Amino acid sequence: MHFKVGVAGHTGYSGAELVKILGRHPSCEPVLLDHRETEGITSRLRRVALEPGAVAAAQLDAVLLATAPEVSLDTVPWLLKTGTRVVDLSGAFRLRTVENYQRWYGATHTSPELLALAIYGLPEFNRTQIAGAQFVSNPGCYPTAANLALRPLLQANLVDKSHGVVCDAKSGVSGAGRKPSLKTSFCEVTGNFSAYSVLNHRHVPEVLQLSGLQEEEFSFTAHLLPIARGILETIYLRATTGNVNRIAEVFAAQYSSEPFVRLYQPGTLPDIHAVAHTNFCDIGFVADPANSRVVVVAAIDNLVKGAAGQAVQNLNLMLGLPETEGLL
Amino acid sequence: MHFKVGVAGHTGYSGAELVKILGRHPSCEPVLLDHRETEGITSRLRRVALEPGAVAAAQLDAVLLATAPEVSLDTVPWLLKTGTRVVDLSGAFRLRTVENYQRWYGATHTSPELLALAIYGLPEFNRTQIAGAQFVSNPGCYPTAANLALRPLLQANLVDKSHGVVCDAKSGVSGAGRKPSLKTSFCEVTGNFSAYSVLNHRHVPEVLQLSGLQEEEFSFTAHLLPIARGILETIYLRATTGNVNRIAEVFAAQYSSEPFVRLYQPGTLPDIHAVAHTNFCDIGFVADPANSRVVVVAAIDNLVKGAAGQAVQNLNLMLGLPETEGLL
Amino acid sequence: MHFKVGVAGHTGYSGAELVKILGRHPSCEPVLLDHRETEGITSRLRRVALEPGAVAAAQLDAVLLATAPEVSLDTVPWLLKTGTRVVDLSGAFRLRTVENYQRWYGATHTSPELLALAIYGLPEFNRTQIAGAQFVSNPGCYPTAANLALRPLLQANLVDKSHGVVCDAKSGVSGAGRKPSLKTSFCEVTGNFSAYSVLNHRHVPEVLQLSGLQEEEFSFTAHLLPIARGILETIYLRATTGNVNRIAEVFAAQYSSEPFVRLYQPGTLPDIHAVAHTNFCDIGFVADPANSRVVVVAAIDNLVKGAAGQAVQNLNLMLGLPETEGLL
Amino acid sequence: MHFKVGVAGHTGYSGAELVKILGRHPSCEPVLLDHRETEGITSRLRRVALEPGAVAAAQLDAVLLATAPEVSLDTVPWLLKTGTRVVDLSGAFRLRTVENYQRWYGATHTSPELLALAIYGLPEFNRTQIAGAQFVSNPGCYPTAANLALRPLLQANLVDKSHGVVCDAKSGVSGAGRKPSLKTSFCEVTGNFSAYSVLNHRHVPEVLQLSGLQEEEFSFTAHLLPIARGILETIYLRATTGNVNRIAEVFAAQYSSEPFVRLYQPGTLPDIHAVAHTNFCDIGFVADPANSRVVVVAAIDNLVKGAAGQAVQNLNLMLGLPETEGLL
Repeated sequence: MHFKVGVAGHTGYSGAELVKILGRHPSCEPVLLDHRETEGITSRLRRVALEPGAVAAAQLDAVLLATAPEVSLDTVPWLLKTGTRVVDLSGAFRLRTVENYQRWYGATHTSPELLALAIYGLPEFNRTQIAGAQFVSNPGCYPTAANLALRPLLQANLVDKSHGVVCDAKSGVSGAGRKPSLKTSFCEVTGNFSAYSVLNHRHVPEVLQLSGLQEEEFSFTAHLLPIARGILETIYLRATTGNVNRIAEVFAAQYSSEPFVRLYQPGTLPDIHAVAHTNFCDIGFVADPANSRVVVVAAIDNLVKGAAGQAVQNLNLMLGLPETEGLL
Repeated sequence: MHFKVGVAGHTGYSGAELVKILGRHPSCEPVLLDHRETEGITSRLRRVALEPGAVAAAQLDAVLLATAPEVSLDTVPWLLKTGTRVVDLSGAFRLRTVENYQRWYGATHTSPELLALAIYGLPEFNRTQIAGAQFVSNPGCYPTAANLALRPLLQANLVDKSHGVVCDAKSGVSGAGRKPSLKTSFCEVTGNFSAYSVLNHRHVPEVLQLSGLQEEEFSFTAHLLPIARGILETIYLRATTGNVNRIAEVFAAQYSSEPFVRLYQPGTLPDIHAVAHTNFCDIGFVADPANSRVVVVAAIDNLVKGAAGQAVQNLNLMLGLPETEGLL
Repeated sequence: MHFKVGVAGHTGYSGAELVKILGRHPSCEPVLLDHRETEGITSRLRRVALEPGAVAAAQLDAVLLATAPEVSLDTVPWLLKTGTRVVDLSGAFRLRTVENYQRWYGATHTSPELLALAIYGLPEFNRTQIAGAQFVSNPGCYPTAANLALRPLLQANLVDKSHGVVCDAKSGVSGAGRKPSLKTSFCEVTGNFSAYSVLNHRHVPEVLQLSGLQEEEFSFTAHLLPIARGILETIYLRATTGNVNRIAEVFAAQYSSEPFVRLYQPGTLPDIHAVAHTNFCDIGFVADPANSRVVVVAAIDNLVKGAAGQAVQNLNLMLGLPETEGLL
Repeated sequence: MHFKVGVAGHTGYSGAELVKILGRHPSCEPVLLDHRETEGITSRLRRVALEPGAVAAAQLDAVLLATAPEVSLDTVPWLLKTGTRVVDLSGAFRLRTVENYQRWYGATHTSPELLALAIYGLPEFNRTQIAGAQFVSNPGCYPTAANLALRPLLQANLVDKSHGVVCDAKSGVSGAGRKPSLKTSFCEVTGNFSAYSVLNHRHVPEVLQLSGLQEEEFSFTAHLLPIARGILETIYLRATTGNVNRIAEVFAAQYSSEPFVRLYQPGTLPDIHAVAHTNFCDIGFVADPANSRVVVVAAIDNLVKGAAGQAVQNLNLMLGLPETEGLL
């Protein structure tokens, strides 16, 4: 089997990662959908204009959009009409309501009718739906790690929500995109570390949606790490039990057969090197039996499991391919 | 006025910073107290052996110990008998009880009689005691930032302790000392980020002691940042009020005339660049009026306000010099 | 004595360093000359518009221009007419001929009559002229290190010019300025290293002018180091002698009483840490007695001895102050 | 086909890279040859003791030694007697004479009889010999880039040797190995850059051997880059022609069908990002037609084309596999 997969936004970091992964994928061939030419990017890959006629003529099996939300909003409607499969890596179709989109993205959602169609592409929780979908909305980087770390504990009723959950998240600079800005310039970032979007990051509602936590129960702060790629989240919660084994069991029950989630022995924790350039989400935790305090640490590569790798994982499911193909 | 100030442990990062600060100090002259020679360190400064006869003969006005706790435990007793002033930068005399020392440092405290004599050297809270002291125990780096950020809010009863306080702390690598190890080698640290000492860092009891929080109310995780120097702590708490102005007022009442604490406008936050190579502790916060969630961010340079700078601030007080001399 | 010193271009890295150095200078007070407002820069310093009436009215003792060459070209003529002293940190007045300016800066020089007036501000070679000057052109960062390393050997006829001189230069990213660009964005620079302006860097003619080398005798390549600040140049030449002591003597004769040049023992070499945040130029060399090959390594901080620090060194001379004031 | 390939020294950076590459290799299975256990390394791979009986019993198709020269000296003799193929990544068997080994490695060579047997493993120049060899000595990282950049020009008589050749080389820290030391600790390396082994690096004789240059004609300086991996070498020479096209033709004639050498358009140059985590050697050059000065820039990943990748490239040839297998 051989699939032609269009990639829009290949000049950005997530898009370039898509092209790289698909370039090594045994069953897929990347095709560049040129939204615009960008400085310093050349490629021998086939190029197709990102407009309805050209895309339809190219008979693509799927299109991956590594574009800004506003571009995805404009593009997804006509793309779906060409009959191709679509994975959108932007935030345009992740939230279930237009009200939430308006609040967190500060813009009107122009395709509300497609929200019901968009399947949230976190395979560890809705693999079946993804496999049958024409349109998948790829999760945000921060929510991927947070939801994988939190959801099993929440579903097993192991979290005392009244205490609230704190997620202190740190990301490498590629998470901010490739567009030059003072905030992401080398001299401002190196030797530095800073918090941003405290309590109001647009990824928060994605966690609330999937975890069932209320906004006041989930405190999230993003930080900019002086590294190129990788996310580490340190999550603090009060458990309903101080029994370390119980927590370990819940994680194992959820993830022991997952190909892209790796669990650490209780008391040991992943770091970013462990997951960089991979599609793994690594999870470890420390529990304080005396007071039922639990600290969960989850690490991913923001460009792989947090973006391009997860998109290909979804694509594999949509195309009926082995879920791990091209990703190990 | 001119004071001779001995520095032990000048081959470490904190000790080297002490020598640098004292070298520019208008009223002090550093004297090296050689605990041992170390590779790659040369100096034209006067050297005196770190042993009773030599130190007594040198008639030092003060001695600053940038040594390991076990060295400080051996040294402080005889140093004090020579009549000199002492500032100990190690953790040997920070905790008030030998039980706490045994638990957190894993060793027997051999000079319990000196614990009552040791003044905890955080000038913003006990300037007067420091000024009259012969022996000051310099605070740890993490507790300096945490206590400066938390204590005003706690004393004003603005913290709902039942929700617990989370302190997610990140430090540059110099905090781990200068001794080579795999964990602090360049290739392991660059591009990486990791958590350590989750819920059991030995700096925790210093925060509990000064803040009055109970252990189960204070969750602390340390992380290793891929930078040389600087600490940023992100502190999460539930306030007893969502009134941003009230929080700002409490901070201002405490710090508006402090020379080394800088407050940020509500909603704006310091980063590590703002404090690197300075003796400042910068504090900002974000408050969520709807749910009374508050996130406080405090930043210091771990080698300056978190070690050598604060030691000289204490020394200035002990010698009757202006508190800021040599530090601006 | 107290001097008012205007600083134009304070939002750039060199300008910010000027403001920092002058802010600690015992005899000078910085005044901001606003060319434009820039994101994220605030200051409590006095501000004066960068136009003739305002500057004249402000009665400034000197003006330091950390501006682009084209801005300096427009500004210096009227500034000098106000009677104030001027140090220009741009490249606008460094080259002695308009032909050279046209070739290396790709623009017409609009004030050729001022070229004869501009004193090249390398104090180690023309201190006396600087002291009496109204207008000093501050050297480029690369030429400062290269000329300090090469000129003594050339003047002592120790260089076999027929073999050519190679200067392999590496600079931190602040040398590229503060304006955001893809090339200086964090993700592109971290973990990377690249050469640029091979054989045609606009700093080359500054070296030729002062050293007397011909263009074909001097091969220069610039490289971008993944650090914020600092320059290290590795210079290869064939000496007319393999006598290490002779080379050391020539350097010592030139520099042993210079306050800002430090010589290393033969066979030992400076690194960038040794000079970062200082106004020193550190010089070391290795000689191969058998074949008279000599490798000289020179290190400076590009923002200090390579820009702002040297400008203040020149300013001190122009104002009749001790040359080292505010710089140690 | 399926080959069992032993890896000794898997706890070092080159050895770990070998295990990683072989772990993805379609025709090879790595087996760990335990020289010693090291902190923080765990593996599910099969382990065999690095001693004659165990290795013979394991019936390995090949053994790759990522060990120190003294370990390789002790190991290679008995390894070869077991009949297995050997690729030695150390410097123990790279130099053709025991005198050279004594001079550059400061130790007596204990197996001089094996020097004639050792094939120097640079496939771009002696692919045929490698294919038939039992024992290959893998080139050093610096010489790999230098020889690939220089040898075509030298063989085409395009280099004016009387002017000398300068190779200014810069390497990431992994080149110094994984053993902790002050020089490779994070705080000493970050923000820093330094030269080392000026004119006397032990990799020099490897370049002389293959290029035919005399020692006085080749000036080599190594530098430590604040990055984890990657080498960039800037090579200066005087050509016997200023004809850019001629130089480009020589490179193209040599490399246009090489799978792991990529040539850049004249005037454009590779950087380290272009080759990191790949087995490519990228080569570009700038020529000055007026004076026949040529600057060649070559970049490799020191752990891949400079060590483990090249070793697997050699292994592929020795095993009769496609040369690129497991390396693209």
